[in-house]
This record gives sequence, structure tokens and C-alpha cells, in this order.
Amino acid sequence: MPEYKAPLRDLQFALNEVLDFDQHYQNLPGAETATSDVVAAIVQEAAKFSEQVIAPLNAVGDLEGCQWSEEQVITPPGFKEAYAQFVEGGWPGLSLDPEIGGQGLPPSLTNVVFELFNSANHAWAMYPSLAYGATNTINAHASEELRQRFVLKMAEGRWSGTMCLTEAHAGTDLGLMRTKAEPLDDGSYAISGSKIFISAGEHDMSDNIIHIVLARLPDAPEGVGGISLFIVPKIWVNEDGSLGEPNGVSCGSIENKMGIHGNATCVMNFDEARGFLVGEPHRGMNCMFTFVNKARLGVAQQAQAHIEASFQFALDYAKERLQMRAPVRALPDKPADPIIVHPDVRRMLLTQKAFSEGSRLLNYYCAQLVDLADASQDQDERLRAEAELALLTPIAKGFVSEISLEATSLGVQVLGGHGFISQWGLEQEYRDTRITTIYEGTNGIQALDLLGRKILASGGEAIKPFAHQIQSFVDSEQPASLAPWIKLLGENLRLWLQLTQELGERAMKDPNHVGAAAYDYLMIAGYTTLAYFWARGAAVAAMELEKGNDDKEFYQAKLATAQFYFERILPRNQSLAATIRSGADNLMQLPEESFAF
Amino acid sequence: MPEYKAPLRDLQFALNEVLDFDQHYQNLPGAETATSDVVAAIVQEAAKFSEQVIAPLNAVGDLEGCQWSEEQVITPPGFKEAYAQFVEGGWPGLSLDPEIGGQGLPPSLTNVVFELFNSANHAWAMYPSLAYGATNTINAHASEELRQRFVLKMAEGRWSGTMCLTEAHAGTDLGLMRTKAEPLDDGSYAISGSKIFISAGEHDMSDNIIHIVLARLPDAPEGVGGISLFIVPKIWVNEDGSLGEPNGVSCGSIENKMGIHGNATCVMNFDEARGFLVGEPHRGMNCMFTFVNKARLGVAQQAQAHIEASFQFALDYAKERLQMRAPVRALPDKPADPIIVHPDVRRMLLTQKAFSEGSRLLNYYCAQLVDLADASQDQDERLRAEAELALLTPIAKGFVSEISLEATSLGVQVLGGHGFISQWGLEQEYRDTRITTIYEGTNGIQALDLLGRKILASGGEAIKPFAHQIQSFVDSEQPASLAPWIKLLGENLRLWLQLTQELGERAMKDPNHVGAAAYDYLMIAGYTTLAYFWARGAAVAAMELEKGNDDKEFYQAKLATAQFYFERILPRNQSLAATIRSGADNLMQLPEESFAF
Repeated sequence: MPEYKAPLRDLQFALNEVLDFDQHYQNLPGAETATSDVVAAIVQEAAKFSEQVIAPLNAVGDLEGCQWSEEQVITPPGFKEAYAQFVEGGWPGLSLDPEIGGQGLPPSLTNVVFELFNSANHAWAMYPSLAYGATNTINAHASEELRQRFVLKMAEGRWSGTMCLTEAHAGTDLGLMRTKAEPLDDGSYAISGSKIFISAGEHDMSDNIIHIVLARLPDAPEGVGGISLFIVPKIWVNEDGSLGEPNGVSCGSIENKMGIHGNATCVMNFDEARGFLVGEPHRGMNCMFTFVNKARLGVAQQAQAHIEASFQFALDYAKERLQMRAPVRALPDKPADPIIVHPDVRRMLLTQKAFSEGSRLLNYYCAQLVDLADASQDQDERLRAEAELALLTPIAKGFVSEISLEATSLGVQVLGGHGFISQWGLEQEYRDTRITTIYEGTNGIQALDLLGRKILASGGEAIKPFAHQIQSFVDSEQPASLAPWIKLLGENLRLWLQLTQELGERAMKDPNHVGAAAYDYLMIAGYTTLAYFWARGAAVAAMELEKGNDDKEFYQAKLATAQFYFERILPRNQSLAATIRSGADNLMQLPEESFAF
Repeated sequence: MPEYKAPLRDLQFALNEVLDFDQHYQNLPGAETATSDVVAAIVQEAAKFSEQVIAPLNAVGDLEGCQWSEEQVITPPGFKEAYAQFVEGGWPGLSLDPEIGGQGLPPSLTNVVFELFNSANHAWAMYPSLAYGATNTINAHASEELRQRFVLKMAEGRWSGTMCLTEAHAGTDLGLMRTKAEPLDDGSYAISGSKIFISAGEHDMSDNIIHIVLARLPDAPEGVGGISLFIVPKIWVNEDGSLGEPNGVSCGSIENKMGIHGNATCVMNFDEARGFLVGEPHRGMNCMFTFVNKARLGVAQQAQAHIEASFQFALDYAKERLQMRAPVRALPDKPADPIIVHPDVRRMLLTQKAFSEGSRLLNYYCAQLVDLADASQDQDERLRAEAELALLTPIAKGFVSEISLEATSLGVQVLGGHGFISQWGLEQEYRDTRITTIYEGTNGIQALDLLGRKILASGGEAIKPFAHQIQSFVDSEQPASLAPWIKLLGENLRLWLQLTQELGERAMKDPNHVGAAAYDYLMIAGYTTLAYFWARGAAVAAMELEKGNDDKEFYQAKLATAQFYFERILPRNQSLAATIRSGADNLMQLPEESFAF
């Protein structure tokens, strides 16, 4: 059975050596308590919880899944107890306002610990993760009275939460939504409709579940401009915060699905369920906006977490499995060599390693931007952080999830036949991460968001600050050994900008050029962004080696992996540029009825 | 629920219009009965059987899987009955010798119908497919007496068969095998040992199961040169062919695995089980050789079959699902447009279509070569076919299975959230095909076989006849509209040959260059080979259109898909060439203990 170990050395590298979280927290208003000692202690505890409490439940969660009956949904054995331990440990409130009972640590710290939780057990981690998102949404947008009524218990973790957006006919296209909200005399609303794909919609872990539901008021205009946001508790909550009667909320069924079996994906039926309006009428999408963007970064983190776990399990196997001889024998006294001596096995493992460690930097960097966007007192800095997040969110969500499919597939492949067998755990990583390119906006949507809504709609302005940041790095003085990679980084940045320019021109003539190029463009953006973070990591490593740092092997491994990334991954941009430049005709000319005969 | 339809129009195109099976069969000794009418009738019947009998069992097979007990393995509901119908229909003997009760049709026809069976139900189709392989192996290599004793019932389908190669510590590396065979006084042998990953090793479909087992005789030399091949029946078979006592063969357990749940993957224990030697002592690998190569082509076909099924299901959904607006509205009176109007959805569907139809040509072409290698009376022709098969087998197995992972993943993605949900069937295609890059030799092994054993070991000779064939096509007169693609085909062929040359030189200096390049080289070989078949298909289509063929839409779709392939898929070779040229250092320099800290 595979055994997940929190990669603490690499977390330390990412947090302290590359991204300087210490400095970041010292400058961040309200983050004074997040000293490096506190951060290290919290990460240590999160590692322990991940390794000892929830990682052992990952396989059983997959095997047993959730059990639905009309009365309840029962989570897999051990899930409930682990959640109780989580609440006991104070984890739900880690990054929540002290005024609602949280510990007031920066949001990025929750991101960091959730990497570990997700590597250990994605399906389990979704329960607290969704609750955290719902809590933040209510806390940010609801009235003081509703906040008092709901978020205190949520911050404790005693109540959990969900986000109810999707309907059967309204997935990507939320404007088609039909769930309705009728005003009641007491100022509350009766919500009726059916939502699908509601993760953690029903379960047995918490005393109550607070649903955030999108619905239409009677006078709502059509489309997304007519959607309002409501709090709908599973069990009614009295004004004093005590529990009342069950509300008109029920789970109609749970889905049989490819992965994340331990998390209940629910059809949620609202039958004149009572709820409260949050924010202004018809402005529900605005309230959702922050949540959705953070959820997308959360998906990037789940995707990276799977790469890491798959890498660890595949690496263990590759070191132990003796099979065939390398060109140069490694263990001449054994009947065969460990398969890690084979170049092709190394290709697979290094791809996983480069993707995991590179994405970790990207994700943590985005987490820092969230801190700044949320809490900076400097308006310019806040706006800069928001703008950069707007650019990097679709890249992180879309790109990291795509490479997670590839990396977890390589994890399966390293094990050969055993990769296909459940007990080795690799196939579960492959299945569980498959949702990450889909939920919180499919990657097709992320790609359009990046190229269309963000970059082209801004006349290319949206890309400039980040491109400038990369260019500054390219132009800065760096250890000489990095020169070939810095050169490649500069070339790929220019290619990215050049393609942006070309697409801007072509999009004027034919809007289909945007959709035709978007996916490949997202991937170029991703490979180039990851190259930037690998270059930064390599620069730190080279400098530490120059300084004679004792941890030589670690930094040399960074340089070797950077070299692998620049020489064996980044060249993918060449083909992507060619396909982008091939235009839209090759996609659009085939009549719909001629796809098959 | 998805509904598979045998793509008869495209089969007709591949068989009759591109590859001229009619002429091929007319020239093939013993294939006189395979007239175009007979072939069409058989394909029709296979389509009916696939669509009506086994496709409806595909989801239930996945859901219920096989049930193991110490006494037996029970296949999913309906599997046994479908197999009885299969036997009743005479399918097991389709391509077997008339002298053992077969219908004597060419092997390629079995390949063609198995495409349909595999698209409909891969897990089910493995039972007869393995039996067919075992029957052929015994028929080809066993003594007349053993043939009489075993293959008659196998040809009828009343007894099935398996191939027992892998052991827990001996997967890719069969030389490490330990199962032993002790000679008994009566000329038979007592076989003892344990085999794993035995597909269809135990089940309830047939009266007996004839295992082909690799084992070592007491005086066997070490390694693969000490392996002999044995027939070991589940139930003893008397000299007159009647059934005797149960033999010392038992199924210790079946694996829980990612996909093909309807096929039992067994641990098979042989406890002094009685068996017969087939062929010469210590020469078992030679007898296996033919079987393994054909099995690899079978995997290419399974992989293509999944692409086709996934394409069909995704296409149906994309035409029906209304969501968002296209840049130019398609259905202005509906609340949204069908998602097939979106360029990115078309990119995914066209990738599937191009992969499915292109791989079909490659697979059928290989099937023709098998016909020739087996049956041609012209020794030169036979040797040429064998040599070409030696080259194309790792390409077909390795490349088609890789693109099958991609294509079935795109099938999931087209459906968004529904792609992750079991009832839509796409996620099963994704899981089931995942085995194809693994079994019958992982793709890492295929890649080494292609580049190392086949091409470089021959000093590059092995590639020449096929390269010459492509070059002749490039140089031949073709419809003018194809010129840009023919040019690309020529360029990519030259790139492939150039890389071969470069690798030959580098391999002399450092053998790790072979392993470091092999996977990317396999993919370049695959993309170029598929480009050749797409060009041939496009040439036929262009000529039919010039002639004014009525089926205009079909041929125009071929040209549109060819254009997509040349402009959006083939450019991948550029990046692959760059990574190949990056050498082996970026894979080999990292010490084993430095992969993780």
C-alpha cells in the first residue's frame, strides 16, 4: 500500500527560499502572528494529520464510497471521526476572522495545508474545503445578523457548507438556471428547484449543512443578471443560532462516478425550503465571483496534490522493483536492476517531479496574491494583486489540472500492470484527479476566460505586468550556469506575447479564432509560467550551491530537474504555437452532421 | 445511456476503398471464400452481435465485475449467455483452419470483427480473444496428437484458453520466471508455480479452460533461454478428448482494478498440475513469439475501438447538449447552442475522429500483413510482410494505445461533469483503455523494441522498406488539393529518418541515448505513420469527389479531417524532435536517492 509523506523539505524551499513567505507575512496587515515558527509548526501538524489520519482513509473512501438512503448519506468508514479530529484541532478556523472565532492566519496558509490534505485524501478534504468557501462567502456578503446566525458555528466546523450552482440543463451556462425563490412574509424566501453535482451536499459529518443556493426571484431578468444568492440551511436555524426543524432540503440521490468516491456528489432538491437572501437581489453572481475564483485556485492545488502523491508512490516502486538490466548494470549481484535506472522510467518520474514542484511554486505564489488582494492596505498593491490573479487563476486551474492528468497517468505507467491494480493506489490518483479539468469551470472555459475575457478583452493589457515580471527576471543578474535556461525562458515569453498579438489581430476578423486557439494558448501560458517558476527555483538553488550550503544534494536535484524541464518539457510550446497558427478553418469547416456517417 | 453503432460506412471505406481487401483476399492463398459479399455479410452480422448482444452488457460488466469464490469465478450477468450465442454463431472458428473445424477465413477478418466487439465490450471480447490466441498457439506448435486432443473443442469455442506468462517478480522480465515443470513417467509434466495477471484465467463461460503456461524444466538454463511452453488444462482431457478429473489448477484470487471489470484478472496457482510440453524444451519463448506479436496488434485494435466508442458517445452529447452561445449563434430560437458549435469542442471531437479513423487504417493494414506473413506462398512476400510487421507492431501497439488515452480523456471532457459520471459511459472508456499502454509489453518496452531491437540493431535497415513506401506515395501523382499535406508528410518522413540517423550515431557513444529517446521516437513514428494513412485516405476521397461520387459529404469529411490531422496533430513531431535531440544527460544525471528528500 502506498504511503504519503508530506514533502516538508520542498515546502520549506517553496515557502522560505523561493517565495519568502516570512517577508510576505511581515508586510501583510493582520498576518503578524504568522511568524516562520508558527508557520512551520502548523505545517508540521498538518503533515501529521495528513499522513496519520486521512491518508489511511484514502483507499477505503474510494472502495466503500458514500451510502445514500432517503434519510441520509453515510460517508466512508473513518471519515466522520477524522472530521471530528479536524474540528477538534481547530483547522476550520485557521484563516478565518478572529471576530467570528477564527485564528486570523492568512488565507495562503490554509492553501498550503490543503495541499497536504488533498495529497492525502482529496475526497475527504473536499468536505472542509467547501465549508470554508461557504463560510467565507457568507462572511463577506451577508448582513451582520445573518453572519452572527451562521458563520460562528461554521467557523468552528460544527456546521459545514456547500455551493449549489449547477442544474441539469445549466452547467457552464448558469444563465439558464431555473431554481426560484419566492419572498415570504417574514422576509425570508421559499426556494424551489433541483441542483445537481453538489459536492458534500449531504453527509453525516456535521450537525448542519448550510447551502449557498443560486436562484431567481420572481421579477428576475433573464440570464446571469437575474440570479440571486441565498443561504438555505439543511436544518432551520433560529434567530438565536439554535437548530429548529428540518428545512425542505433533501438529497435525491448521489452519483456513481469515476473518482473521489468518498465525497458525495448530490442531487439536491429544494422544496419550498426557507432561506435568506445574501447581498442585493439579482447580484448573486457578483457574490459568487470571489468564491469561484478561489475555488479554481483550490482545484489547481488538488491537481498538484495528486501529481505529488502519484510521484511519491511511483518513485517508491521504481526504486524497489527489480526488472531487466540497465545499459550499465546497477546491481550486478541482484537478478535485475531497479527500474529507476532505465532512462524511460526516469523520464516519467522527472516529468512528475518537475510538474509537482513547479506547480507548487505557482500555486503558493497565487496564494500570496490572494493574501494581498484580500488584506493589503495599499490600494495599488491590492489592485495589482487582483489583476495578476485574474490572469493566473485560469492558468493555474487549467494548466495544472491538465498536467495532473498526464503526471498521474505516468504514475500508473511506471508500475506497469500494478499501476492498473487498485491496491497500489496509483490508479486512484489517476481517477480522482480526472475531475480537476472539469469542475469549477471546464478547462475549455478556463482557456476562453484567459485568452478572450482576460487578455484580448483588455487589448493585451492583462498580460503585461506578469510578462514584465518575467522579463525583469530574464534581464536580471543570475548565476552563469542558468544562462541557457534563462535564454529559453526569454524566448518562450516572446513567443507567448507574439502569439497574443497575432491572435488579437485574427480575432478581429473571425471570433472563432479565439475559441480555436484558446486551449493551446492556455497550455503555452502554463508551460511558460512554470518555466518562470522553475527558473526562479533554479536561481535559488544555484546561489545556495555557490554559497556552499550543506544541503548540496537537494539543490543539485533542483538544478537537474530544472534542466529536465527546460530541455524536455518546455519544447512543447513549439508544437502548440504551430497548431495555434493553423487557424480556425480546420475546426469549423466540417458540418455538424458530417462528423459521423 | 450511450449506444454504440458499428461504423459500417467507415469500415467499408477502410476495407474496400483504401486498402482494397477484395484484391488482397483474391491474391491470398486459401482466402478464396472471402469474397466482398461474404466479408460484408460477416461484418454486418458482427455489427448486429456487437450492438445488440454485447454492447448492452458493457456497463453492467463494469458495475458488477466478476465474482470470485474458491470454487469458481462468476462473470457478470449476461456474459455467459452472450458467449453461448457467440459460439452458436460460429464466431470462434471464423479464421481457424477448416481441418480443425474452422471456417478458414483469413485472420484479418477476425481482426476486423474484433474491432466491433472491442468497441462494444472490451472486457467481454477478451475471453474469446485470448481463447483464439491460445488455439492458434497450440495449433501452430503442438504435436498432431495434442492438436487433436485440444484444438477441435477450442475451435468450436466449447473450451477457452489463456496465456500464463507473468509472475509476481517477473513481468517485463520473463527471464526471472520460476514456475517449474517436472517430467512424469507418462511423458506429461507436473507444473508448479503461481502466475499473476492472467486475463480470463477462470470463468464460467466454457466447459474447460486450456492454459498455455511458461515454465522451467529441471535442467533449464537461466534466463529466457530456459523457458518451455506447456498445455495445462483446467480439467484433465483424456486421450479421446473427453473430460477427466479436475487438474491441479486453481484461481487464488482476482484483482480489483481500474477497468475491464468484466474480465477476470486472475492469480493462477498450479500445484503439480499435469500438462504437456509444446514444441522443443527451452524453446517456449519462440512458440510464444507469434502469439505475443499478434496480441500486440490486438491491443492496438482494442485501443482504437475505445477511441471510436468514446468519439461516438461524445459526439451524440455534443450535438444534443445546449449550453452557451457560439460566436455566431446556431440556434437563435433555442436558449443556447449545441456545444458542437464551439471551436474547442470541435477540436476535441476532431482529435477523436482523426485518431479513430486513422488508426483503423493502420490496424487493418497490419492485419493484411499478418495474412501475408501467415499464408503467402511467395517467400519474398512473406518475409517482406514479416519484416514490415516487425516494424509496425510496436508502433501500432504503442502509439495507438497512447492516443487512445488522450482521445478517451477528450471524450470525458466533452461531457464536462457528465463525463465523470458512470451512467454516461465515457469514464468507462477512459478506464478500460488505460490497460492498453500497459499489457502485452508496456509502451516503454514497445519503444525500446522499435528503436533499439528493430531499427538500430538492423543499422537502420528495418525502417527502409516502409519509409520507401511512404516516399513513393509522396512522389506519386496525387490530387492537387492534397499538395500541402503531401509536402508535410514528406518533411515528417525526412525528420523521422534524420532522427534515426542521429540516434544511431549517439547510441554508439552512450547506450542510454536509446532509452532516453525511445518513447518520443515511438510517438514520432506513430504520428508520421498515421499521417501516411490519412494522406492515403484523403487521396481516395479527393479522387472520388473528382469523379463526382454521390457520397459527397462523406468524402468531404475525410478531407476536412485530414486537414485537421495535418495542421493540428502532426506538428507535435516538432516538439518531440526537440526533446529527442536534448540527449540523455537530463534524464541520467540525477542520482537515484535525489529524486525526493
